[in-house]
Amino acid sequence: MDKSKEERATYAAAGVDIGAAERLVGRIKELVRSAGRPEVLAGVGPFAGLFHLGLPTGQAGQYREPVLVASADGVGTKLKLAALLGRYDTVGVDLVNHCVNDILTAGAEPLFFLDYLASSDLGEEEKVAVVRGLVSACRAAGCALIGGETADMPDLYAPGDFDLVGFIVGVVERGCIIDGSTIQEGDVLLGLPSSGLHTNGYSLVRQVFGIGKGGDPAAERATLDRYYPGLGVTLGEVLLIPHRCYYQELKPLLGHVKGMAHITGGGIPGNVARILPEGPSPGSSPEANPPPAEGRSPSAGSGQSLAARFDRGSWRVPPIFDLIQKTGRISDDEMYRVFNMGLGMVLVCSEEGASAVQQALPEAKAVGRVVRREGAEGVILG
Amino acid sequence: MDKSKEERATYAAAGVDIGAAERLVGRIKELVRSAGRPEVLAGVGPFAGLFHLGLPTGQAGQYREPVLVASADGVGTKLKLAALLGRYDTVGVDLVNHCVNDILTAGAEPLFFLDYLASSDLGEEEKVAVVRGLVSACRAAGCALIGGETADMPDLYAPGDFDLVGFIVGVVERGCIIDGSTIQEGDVLLGLPSSGLHTNGYSLVRQVFGIGKGGDPAAERATLDRYYPGLGVTLGEVLLIPHRCYYQELKPLLGHVKGMAHITGGGIPGNVARILPEGPSPGSSPEANPPPAEGRSPSAGSGQSLAARFDRGSWRVPPIFDLIQKTGRISDDEMYRVFNMGLGMVLVCSEEGASAVQQALPEAKAVGRVVRREGAEGVILG
Repeated sequence: MDKSKEERATYAAAGVDIGAAERLVGRIKELVRSAGRPEVLAGVGPFAGLFHLGLPTGQAGQYREPVLVASADGVGTKLKLAALLGRYDTVGVDLVNHCVNDILTAGAEPLFFLDYLASSDLGEEEKVAVVRGLVSACRAAGCALIGGETADMPDLYAPGDFDLVGFIVGVVERGCIIDGSTIQEGDVLLGLPSSGLHTNGYSLVRQVFGIGKGGDPAAERATLDRYYPGLGVTLGEVLLIPHRCYYQELKPLLGHVKGMAHITGGGIPGNVARILPEGPSPGSSPEANPPPAEGRSPSAGSGQSLAARFDRGSWRVPPIFDLIQKTGRISDDEMYRVFNMGLGMVLVCSEEGASAVQQALPEAKAVGRVVRREGAEGVILG
Repeated sequence: MDKSKEERATYAAAGVDIGAAERLVGRIKELVRSAGRPEVLAGVGPFAGLFHLGLPTGQAGQYREPVLVASADGVGTKLKLAALLGRYDTVGVDLVNHCVNDILTAGAEPLFFLDYLASSDLGEEEKVAVVRGLVSACRAAGCALIGGETADMPDLYAPGDFDLVGFIVGVVERGCIIDGSTIQEGDVLLGLPSSGLHTNGYSLVRQVFGIGKGGDPAAERATLDRYYPGLGVTLGEVLLIPHRCYYQELKPLLGHVKGMAHITGGGIPGNVARILPEGPSPGSSPEANPPPAEGRSPSAGSGQSLAARFDRGSWRVPPIFDLIQKTGRISDDEMYRVFNMGLGMVLVCSEEGASAVQQALPEAKAVGRVVRREGAEGVILG
């Protein structure tokens, strides 16, 4: 090879291989075909996905006054554990389920999903495995995977690292939106078990166990491969359990639910505080002055007159949280502030609503009550 | 501080500060308030954004048979230049405009947008600047910013690096979808000028100029700060020009457009090939067999019987592309394969349609024709 040839810059040499990207798209197309819905319009929109909301034969056609419900989320640094262990399918499941749960809190049926997968050097097999996970979770939730972006980002991600982001759109009938506005004193807090850490607290976990902190990958893998009798599995196995999706089981019960908090991005107090109704302010209506909801982090939907009082003895905290706490010498407060501690979703129901939910879903545990607010705290962990 | 205290693990010490995240959300809420629409429902959905599609007072209420059009995209490694130069607002504009253009290719009006901003250590001011850019571009496009996620990802992004992803949903009347299906021999190709590189080819540019490749930041900044008389500005200034949005000017002209290719993720040939109609195949209809569009990269909507022939002398290639080509000793083919070369959007119109578009928009240049396909290539650069 002569020197002049070596010096010529090409996109491929810069780390972006358009040909490889096209091969990948072909493989992905096969996969996503199985995660469709009748409303998805094919053959149009190479730059976008099209979804026919009013199609009479589609489920979405039933809505008289459709309100779209959308959310964007990532998987967080659980991705680093997955990369270290070479497991790429479960994070796709994590992402979809996280997004489905987010819009479920408003009572929404998922319609379609788009993903963004970015890395510097992730291989084709790994990318396909991620999409396989997305597809299986989309299918389980009845959600169409209508698009996505696979970005080659040389020099932005470290070798082996990647980011994975999901966007979901669902729909809810205007009159059926779950917004917490009817929550009142005496209502029951129902907790649904989480499958594990779901997708939050992983930066703390990685610090506690020294994982993904730039150390020797073999040593870090050995840490994850350690079997704990108390867990019944290895540390890596318990940490990679996918985020649980609550949509299918809650779907027939949404009429009994006044408010719903997805315990993610933080712990129970921060997330439950977001759904308590504000004290009544004269003349306010949902449509007036539309400051859009920025779901960026637990925000202060503080609830002036009500509080949620949890009885910490009323549900079982899975052993992984105890292991994390002991290993990291973490305070109780910090544990409850960061992790879901065994509850992935908290529902607020009337007494009768709670009975109906529990009858259909025995694993829904009564974990507390809505009480009159006395102090500054909107959520009390008793 | 005693040793036991130092050893206690906390989320903040692990690089995730929930309190700081809450402060940021407060500032962002102020900003996004100005990028609203009447259809956005406030006061509900802390975990998601709600958009009332059928609201009679909203523009979206006009649609009789609404088809939703969605796209997910990133900014690519243009982000690395922005970080190096400390400019964080323009990449927000890049992202929104990229997304708006993507759904515009189907004829869609943008409705709402969500973003994902991830980094290990990006400061609050920088994050707010990114959102300021998103807000200004959303307002210009009449699009509501209804949600987003700011992810703290310790150890995943290098110091100063970040990723920025956007998700857009628009709507188009079923009968007005632009899908290229009526494109025929003799149709005119109209090119709309790009403002610069828009958001693709930056990995190649960075390789050519040695930027964001782990070298000395001061030296890399000096490269970007170099003034080129032929450009009239510095290299950094020309490379950071935001992706141009074509929505407002094309909105009144969409009825004249048969097909539209957004020149992004690659050059003219790959993107234009995606919109040429497939040869007629009996019994195929858009709704049958719904393989969802995966806009992951230029895919092969090859067009069996037609080709797009461009006359390369018919538009002005901006000087930045000449500078990149000479500096990197890049072949002509590679330049046209990777960069937009001065055309940000290519429209396909009938002769009459092209006249109407050019009358309203004189900068739309006739840059070629749709011809009968002779060889393997769907796009010919003459």
